[in-house]
Amino acid sequence: MTGTAQERQNMSTSRRIEPFAASVWPWVDQMAERNPEAVFFGGGVPPTEAIPVARLRQGADRAWADGAETLLYGEVRGYRPLRDLIVERMASRGAIVDPADVLITNGAQQGIDLAARIFIDPGDIVLTEEPTFMDALRVFRSHEAEPVGVPVDEEGLQVDVLATMLERLPKRPKFLYTMPTFQNPMGVSMSTARRHALVELAREWGFVIVEDDPYGDLSFDGDPPPTLKSIDPEVIFLGTFSKVLAPGLRVGWVASSPRLREAFFNVKEGTDIHNERIMTRTVYHSAQDFLDEHIAATREIYRRRRDAMLAGLEQEMPEGVRWTTPHGGFFLWVTLPERYETDAMLPEATDRGVIYLPSSWFYPDRSWTRSMRLNFSAQPEDRIAEAMRRLAETILAY
Amino acid sequence: MTGTAQERQNMSTSRRIEPFAASVWPWVDQMAERNPEAVFFGGGVPPTEAIPVARLRQGADRAWADGAETLLYGEVRGYRPLRDLIVERMASRGAIVDPADVLITNGAQQGIDLAARIFIDPGDIVLTEEPTFMDALRVFRSHEAEPVGVPVDEEGLQVDVLATMLERLPKRPKFLYTMPTFQNPMGVSMSTARRHALVELAREWGFVIVEDDPYGDLSFDGDPPPTLKSIDPEVIFLGTFSKVLAPGLRVGWVASSPRLREAFFNVKEGTDIHNERIMTRTVYHSAQDFLDEHIAATREIYRRRRDAMLAGLEQEMPEGVRWTTPHGGFFLWVTLPERYETDAMLPEATDRGVIYLPSSWFYPDRSWTRSMRLNFSAQPEDRIAEAMRRLAETILAY
Repeated sequence: MTGTAQERQNMSTSRRIEPFAASVWPWVDQMAERNPEAVFFGGGVPPTEAIPVARLRQGADRAWADGAETLLYGEVRGYRPLRDLIVERMASRGAIVDPADVLITNGAQQGIDLAARIFIDPGDIVLTEEPTFMDALRVFRSHEAEPVGVPVDEEGLQVDVLATMLERLPKRPKFLYTMPTFQNPMGVSMSTARRHALVELAREWGFVIVEDDPYGDLSFDGDPPPTLKSIDPEVIFLGTFSKVLAPGLRVGWVASSPRLREAFFNVKEGTDIHNERIMTRTVYHSAQDFLDEHIAATREIYRRRRDAMLAGLEQEMPEGVRWTTPHGGFFLWVTLPERYETDAMLPEATDRGVIYLPSSWFYPDRSWTRSMRLNFSAQPEDRIAEAMRRLAETILAY
Repeated sequence: MTGTAQERQNMSTSRRIEPFAASVWPWVDQMAERNPEAVFFGGGVPPTEAIPVARLRQGADRAWADGAETLLYGEVRGYRPLRDLIVERMASRGAIVDPADVLITNGAQQGIDLAARIFIDPGDIVLTEEPTFMDALRVFRSHEAEPVGVPVDEEGLQVDVLATMLERLPKRPKFLYTMPTFQNPMGVSMSTARRHALVELAREWGFVIVEDDPYGDLSFDGDPPPTLKSIDPEVIFLGTFSKVLAPGLRVGWVASSPRLREAFFNVKEGTDIHNERIMTRTVYHSAQDFLDEHIAATREIYRRRRDAMLAGLEQEMPEGVRWTTPHGGFFLWVTLPERYETDAMLPEATDRGVIYLPSSWFYPDRSWTRSMRLNFSAQPEDRIAEAMRRLAETILAY
């Protein structure tokens, strides 16, 4: 009977869910269980002390005051004042967007999924950065796309390499997924010159750019380069309040374009109707006349923590270890000399008190195994300093 | 240039989003604009007076008291006490479910989408009732399934017809989607005997049953038949708080089985990480020690409204018009004599003050055009009585 049940399962479930089974998170959870004392640098979250609970709660009180009507179906695109606020915030970074082109989503993760549904047919090619956000790769694969990675250096995606790659691809890619500003996982930003070159290339080859921007507001050293959306209004822009307010709220957005707004509306409405309406209002009331100030305060926390991590790396790391110097966001990227395998080293690092994310997960072909992603935003400076010592010990002992 | 942009759009978007473009709702919205005075029987919603705003707000206060930790990522399956409450409620209708098999979703609509993702590969056959919930059809088509309808009569899905159909299908269907209790759109329920026969058939032919149960708690005339999930633990059960609390909350659930729990977890986590956590807690605190009483009170409202609609139909309808007699839920189904086309008649009905949903939208092949879905839950008795008069006038004048 067990055999039959197994057989049925194999027959019954779809190819599309298989890519979701390969996730870094269960493994990381095992590490946290292996050593509950280990300091966790694996996440992409603000620390609890940076979450403005009191302000959000005030916002919720105002949201509930709107009464029963707001608890029915409605506002598929999302609460209009929140969309106006988003439009204003995007304008402050150079992008002019019509509120009708803004669609509220369950975080930017749903924005990635909706974009994938809108563009991908089985067998399509999707361009990504290499390394890139691992949970975007899972989504693209679940839609039966083939992700093709474009290398990234300290100035972001290597647009000249992309130009050469495009000549050789067997077919036109559907879209390019990029996180140009304070990139996940490397923490680097695409230079302004490359941004313009990328937009040109996308026009020339006829592919869409999907710009994921969870960290763009968290700049430590002056203004970041202009958004891709500000250079080309056809860019699909994904935003979120997860990193600047709180991820548990699940409020993000897609800013598309007049030619695609209906497609995004339809796929959202067709698959989960719309976001929870009270929280959409809560985010509006909380953000209004508050978010800029809050971001300025949290930036200072994150800047100090980044500095602590850079100082710790500088002081502790053995020769041959390199790392990126991010000017914003949550992450930096450490690369070890040739013989290292960060997947294999993770259990030892965990035993010595440090959990990181190994680089292979961020590569479409999992080929690069010498790097790790470290989150500097979630831990206070003294723990960061201590953890860099322990990480260096692990590396030396490997 | 316009031509080129259009061409690019055609080239760029996927086949999968096309089914979402065909929706009854924009058309119905046009009708409401055509005559803003018309009484709307098109929705599937509780009336605002049945939404327990004060209680929900108390629940929200308790949810916010849990603090910053609950605003981070976490609880992919959903708040454990809410899942326990769901397990208890399902047990009261005969189904024994492990809380680990319950996954909180953005309403039952997302449950439909997740189930489709888990089972459907392009070209697969999905069985549905005929008529069935139109927005489930859109989802199945968006996953490139071919929906095949099984006729429904006053005792629900005709299981004997299904048995014959299975012999002739070109391949084994992946799953059967059914709303056995107070069905949308007909308002009928599958008999207990048919439920047992259906479970047997599913075992014999090796297809999964997806039981959608938005209305099962809203029974007016004694207990409904046992859930399919209570007869076979392998059934995928979709539930929601949209009809018994409020749809704008977007809290529903999937109750799967040990062999499928991981697939549901993975696809939810992979596509939008998890539901908004404050609302998940809010629903728990509100429902606890309240929901049964609230449901009992709203049932009385809906029962009176159903009676008013049945009385109005009895009194006003010309000969040859037939309708179902639902024992719960929100809808009944009116069928006109042969020459009628309810799609074509809708503008006239709207002008006379009544908006319904025409039957063609509920059929996979859109072939049946003589019926309409009427929602009796959203309007007070006097408006229902008046509207049945106007509907009868429209029919006579057609």
